[in-house]
Amino acid sequence: MAEEIPKQGKAGVVVNEGPDFKVEVQMVDVPEPKDDELLVRLNCTGLCMSDVHFMLNDWALPKMSAFGVRCAGHEGAGVVVKLGKAVKGWKVGDRAGIKPILDVCHICEECWNGRENYCPGGIHTGLMASGTYQQYLTSPAIYTSRIPDGVEDAVAGPIMCSASTMHRALIDSDLKPGNWVVFPGGGGGVVIQGVQLAKAMGMRPIVVDGGDQKKEMSMKLGAEAYVDFTKEKDVGAKVKEIADGVGAHGVLVTAYQSYKDSFNFVGNRKGAKIMCIALPPAGAVNLGAEPSQFIFNNIHVIGTLVGTMQDTASALDYAKRGLLKPIHEVRGTSRWNESVQALRKGEIAGRIVIE
Amino acid sequence: MAEEIPKQGKAGVVVNEGPDFKVEVQMVDVPEPKDDELLVRLNCTGLCMSDVHFMLNDWALPKMSAFGVRCAGHEGAGVVVKLGKAVKGWKVGDRAGIKPILDVCHICEECWNGRENYCPGGIHTGLMASGTYQQYLTSPAIYTSRIPDGVEDAVAGPIMCSASTMHRALIDSDLKPGNWVVFPGGGGGVVIQGVQLAKAMGMRPIVVDGGDQKKEMSMKLGAEAYVDFTKEKDVGAKVKEIADGVGAHGVLVTAYQSYKDSFNFVGNRKGAKIMCIALPPAGAVNLGAEPSQFIFNNIHVIGTLVGTMQDTASALDYAKRGLLKPIHEVRGTSRWNESVQALRKGEIAGRIVIE
Amino acid sequence: MAEEIPKQGKAGVVVNEGPDFKVEVQMVDVPEPKDDELLVRLNCTGLCMSDVHFMLNDWALPKMSAFGVRCAGHEGAGVVVKLGKAVKGWKVGDRAGIKPILDVCHICEECWNGRENYCPGGIHTGLMASGTYQQYLTSPAIYTSRIPDGVEDAVAGPIMCSASTMHRALIDSDLKPGNWVVFPGGGGGVVIQGVQLAKAMGMRPIVVDGGDQKKEMSMKLGAEAYVDFTKEKDVGAKVKEIADGVGAHGVLVTAYQSYKDSFNFVGNRKGAKIMCIALPPAGAVNLGAEPSQFIFNNIHVIGTLVGTMQDTASALDYAKRGLLKPIHEVRGTSRWNESVQALRKGEIAGRIVIE
Amino acid sequence: MAEEIPKQGKAGVVVNEGPDFKVEVQMVDVPEPKDDELLVRLNCTGLCMSDVHFMLNDWALPKMSAFGVRCAGHEGAGVVVKLGKAVKGWKVGDRAGIKPILDVCHICEECWNGRENYCPGGIHTGLMASGTYQQYLTSPAIYTSRIPDGVEDAVAGPIMCSASTMHRALIDSDLKPGNWVVFPGGGGGVVIQGVQLAKAMGMRPIVVDGGDQKKEMSMKLGAEAYVDFTKEKDVGAKVKEIADGVGAHGVLVTAYQSYKDSFNFVGNRKGAKIMCIALPPAGAVNLGAEPSQFIFNNIHVIGTLVGTMQDTASALDYAKRGLLKPIHEVRGTSRWNESVQALRKGEIAGRIVIE
Repeated sequence: MAEEIPKQGKAGVVVNEGPDFKVEVQMVDVPEPKDDELLVRLNCTGLCMSDVHFMLNDWALPKMSAFGVRCAGHEGAGVVVKLGKAVKGWKVGDRAGIKPILDVCHICEECWNGRENYCPGGIHTGLMASGTYQQYLTSPAIYTSRIPDGVEDAVAGPIMCSASTMHRALIDSDLKPGNWVVFPGGGGGVVIQGVQLAKAMGMRPIVVDGGDQKKEMSMKLGAEAYVDFTKEKDVGAKVKEIADGVGAHGVLVTAYQSYKDSFNFVGNRKGAKIMCIALPPAGAVNLGAEPSQFIFNNIHVIGTLVGTMQDTASALDYAKRGLLKPIHEVRGTSRWNESVQALRKGEIAGRIVIE
Repeated sequence: MAEEIPKQGKAGVVVNEGPDFKVEVQMVDVPEPKDDELLVRLNCTGLCMSDVHFMLNDWALPKMSAFGVRCAGHEGAGVVVKLGKAVKGWKVGDRAGIKPILDVCHICEECWNGRENYCPGGIHTGLMASGTYQQYLTSPAIYTSRIPDGVEDAVAGPIMCSASTMHRALIDSDLKPGNWVVFPGGGGGVVIQGVQLAKAMGMRPIVVDGGDQKKEMSMKLGAEAYVDFTKEKDVGAKVKEIADGVGAHGVLVTAYQSYKDSFNFVGNRKGAKIMCIALPPAGAVNLGAEPSQFIFNNIHVIGTLVGTMQDTASALDYAKRGLLKPIHEVRGTSRWNESVQALRKGEIAGRIVIE
Repeated sequence: MAEEIPKQGKAGVVVNEGPDFKVEVQMVDVPEPKDDELLVRLNCTGLCMSDVHFMLNDWALPKMSAFGVRCAGHEGAGVVVKLGKAVKGWKVGDRAGIKPILDVCHICEECWNGRENYCPGGIHTGLMASGTYQQYLTSPAIYTSRIPDGVEDAVAGPIMCSASTMHRALIDSDLKPGNWVVFPGGGGGVVIQGVQLAKAMGMRPIVVDGGDQKKEMSMKLGAEAYVDFTKEKDVGAKVKEIADGVGAHGVLVTAYQSYKDSFNFVGNRKGAKIMCIALPPAGAVNLGAEPSQFIFNNIHVIGTLVGTMQDTASALDYAKRGLLKPIHEVRGTSRWNESVQALRKGEIAGRIVIE
Repeated sequence: MAEEIPKQGKAGVVVNEGPDFKVEVQMVDVPEPKDDELLVRLNCTGLCMSDVHFMLNDWALPKMSAFGVRCAGHEGAGVVVKLGKAVKGWKVGDRAGIKPILDVCHICEECWNGRENYCPGGIHTGLMASGTYQQYLTSPAIYTSRIPDGVEDAVAGPIMCSASTMHRALIDSDLKPGNWVVFPGGGGGVVIQGVQLAKAMGMRPIVVDGGDQKKEMSMKLGAEAYVDFTKEKDVGAKVKEIADGVGAHGVLVTAYQSYKDSFNFVGNRKGAKIMCIALPPAGAVNLGAEPSQFIFNNIHVIGTLVGTMQDTASALDYAKRGLLKPIHEVRGTSRWNESVQALRKGEIAGRIVIE
């Protein structure tokens, strides 16, 4: 028997959108699913730095309120509680996850070819449509992710965004088993999920970060080497030394401060891939490379953005197999605003999940 | 019966290497092939701008004389006249071509994987070893290219360098039949060979250059569109309009002045490839891209350098099939210095071949 | 202003499904589009041999009537006359094409990865759902193909099935520009569309068939060579001779009688691809190869089935560019049954389109 | 200082080539390296079933004696003791390995493209040239494999053939991390090396074999599941159940008795790869597949043969990293004939290495 659906659900509503925003727990109306939609009751949502940017409105994007959106969030995990009347393939009680892209157009080349993360008609969750900072959310049935048994909600949430993005970057890089891949710090959960995925795909991760605590976690979760920038004088030279004395096969830049080092990390490795993932503030970073740096070593610099349905499913599968360990801390809704503000100040290591 | 080999042969020797160099026709000793080498009698050599740089010594490279080299040149076509005693698979009378890389190490990963154009031990012809500005030259049997019937020497010469390089760039780009590919001018023969190869591979070339003469040649040899920068106000917008209103799938930058436009040419095309081929003077050009430009459209910027044995063979095969038309002018040895000096001054359109 | 939609439309209804079936022109009710569907008024439908098998019910498949289907057909071209109320991205008056697969599940790995031609939930048009042998048909908005300007309906119809299938086979084969590809006869339109597509993709098609008329058409539409099995004693040897004396890089088997020759056509070409497209009667054909035949030459035998949304769009784009010429004959509805019966008897060369 | 090279070295010479052959330990002359060759002192050789076939002469191949060859063997590991005078990049004392292919032509398309395992001019060690059943052997400098530190000779020997072959098959299959790969028994060392390599590349190996001892070894060395054909009634159904209820993504057939099951193992997995590695006696096995089996699931059947220089280097690198464990037993030369005869009778599990 289907569970009872209340008229209202709990939500973390943005108040005073802009530089002084805060997240306030309020009760909001439960939406009605359209014919092709699911109504999902979320059990948790991850908190991601993009949420903060959307609520601050400090990127060159319209305001959330311009879309009539009051709740940020794009990493949700929960359960289907109601089906639109044309929905096929889902049933009430199925577990469901919400991603950074809530829906796509399904009729462009990117959609046809499994590259729908690049659909020009993609709808960004928590900006252009109501996000996962709320208990009840509608989601298009054919663009909602299934959460497999064995992956609990608090694990699944952050996978929707960060692990899926890292999976996409690794796939797009075309790096191979046995290749050296550098993850330059930034200390967040994104890197650690990338390291675990790279390891699971047979690659050899090198983490570049500062301090022994990061070292311990990195090595435990699959890094083959750790380069401490607080101790090494020439970080690039150290990475090169580890990577057969030649240089790494790939770099996944998830912190924009690391773009400047990326060519050093690949050294003289022919055909190396530098993956651009981190979005710097506009104008803050230029790749700073001369054509000759590309030409003499056949370097590839490639930009990549969030994950596809397949990436999310693959990342969830790695989690199910125990190869993608949780890196989050679960908190109650009463600590929502406090946690978002801490995230804004850069005080969060790993990932916070609000239950 | 093998032809008689003289003691000396004609050569275009560099005199006064440096800013005031000139090329002087002299008689030089005919070398003796080692056990694993061929002695090739060249019938012609192409003149390439790199030759000028080597003779000027204005790149950050050692002098030719530091290697004991007196003759530049790396685009030669001729006939085998003598075999080292361990040579297999060749016979006197076979046609042979000399490439920008005279030999490679054969025992590194790049060599093993058909990417020997990136062998760190590659020997650059006409700089580190005696070049094709001479009648008789030795070449390692297993790294000499065969010239097929139906491709005359004056056609084969320039293919060794320019067409082979363009073939490599097209292959490395992973562009597909039906894709729009921009060739930003520079007017030289390189672009025209690229256009013909792209066309033969099913792509849709757009040439960006100035003037009606270039237009006529471009369209005749396979361009599907021509954008005249002397007439169009916004060249990038025009390219985008032609390319389905989205942007080109690829750009092959063979003139370094065009790097700055390359992101405009690809517009919003997801997954577009920008191929870096032109080597600018050190420090003259920065790619000038922000990571977000890569990220939002999944742009790939890839460096590529000369062609492999396979690229050369493939380009020669297209020539044999009539899909790669000659673009050169043949001159006698008496006009050698004059032609090199004209090339230096940028007065040569197409390719000069010295017979 | 939208055109008026009648209550009933003309249809080619199967009567007496089974060995003595016939196609009878009747008036049938015009269906109402669901929320996510288009109502399409078809201007024409191609006739395909699969239609005959469905109406004969001589394959190991359920009857059309078991699905409540009265009209076969899966190659339709027309215009959108009405939109379901949730449809986005389409408007009345848009041109639309119907493919062999009417809809897919959109939520399996095949669908996510642009391989939805292999969706296990695919609905076969004209068997599991009402087909294109009728004037008015509903089709899911996100799985209907757009027909571009410059491609008339009678051309677009057959592209939906045959050209799209051949495009998929060529893409799946991973054959490259410059490769030799054999199209063993069968004389139908499928081969000729394959030849044109292969040519447009830079490959070198060899047609193996019988008679001068076929030769003329093949050579005119892009074949580089024609091997006449009525004249050549050893067809395999002749193909090998043409293909550099080694063998073809690929074979596209569209007539099941040719499976037995496919290994001869590839000869000693390393890494050659044999594409299985033709569906033989159950048990009629065994590939007949020993493992050693695969091993000594790195042969790939690959099965492939219909085209994807992307394949159809790509094939339509080649048609728009004039690289895929029409090969059909248009007939009126009064000749429907006669034409289907002729097709059944193998008396049709090229493709019949009913208007 | 270079070690002293004796006039003669120990060898396992074939006596009475044919059905009653035996291997006799004799002293044979130490060969002199040609200009481009190394003289290698082997410390050990693996014994491979192909050796037995060569000595039996029961394959459709010329006799060893027709090539003047007296010693079989193609899995040797040792040290360079002398250099031909034109050799570059090697020095006396370097560790060196001998592969199933002693040399290739270096001037064909296969050689150019890193697919030199398919060079038509390849020279098979221990059949067309003197093999590794002897202490001193010459080998072409540019086609000899380097053995890295940390991989002992008795481990390196069998890698030259079996692990390198499995690496090639896995690479050629294009299977991905996370994919299910079936290794149908045959119990030999080849499968176990394949399992370890697949595991190291992020795949999920399923071993199908008989008995608990095989199970234990398989699971210990990286299999994720083991299907015991002595216990399971329907082995194919069991494999399918394990592989997500769909079927495996790939099968590596290393025992020819398993070809018949290969289509069962892949079940309904779309795009699955069946790799043909085992060479059956001529006429003994037909793949036995109908085209429809290929077509309905996009099945790829691909033949593959030994490994390349890169495969051997990659396999050695996995061994160096501890991901490819030794599976051999070392015996002295006095047990040479006894061991070969046992191998012939199928009494050897794992791999014998003669020191």
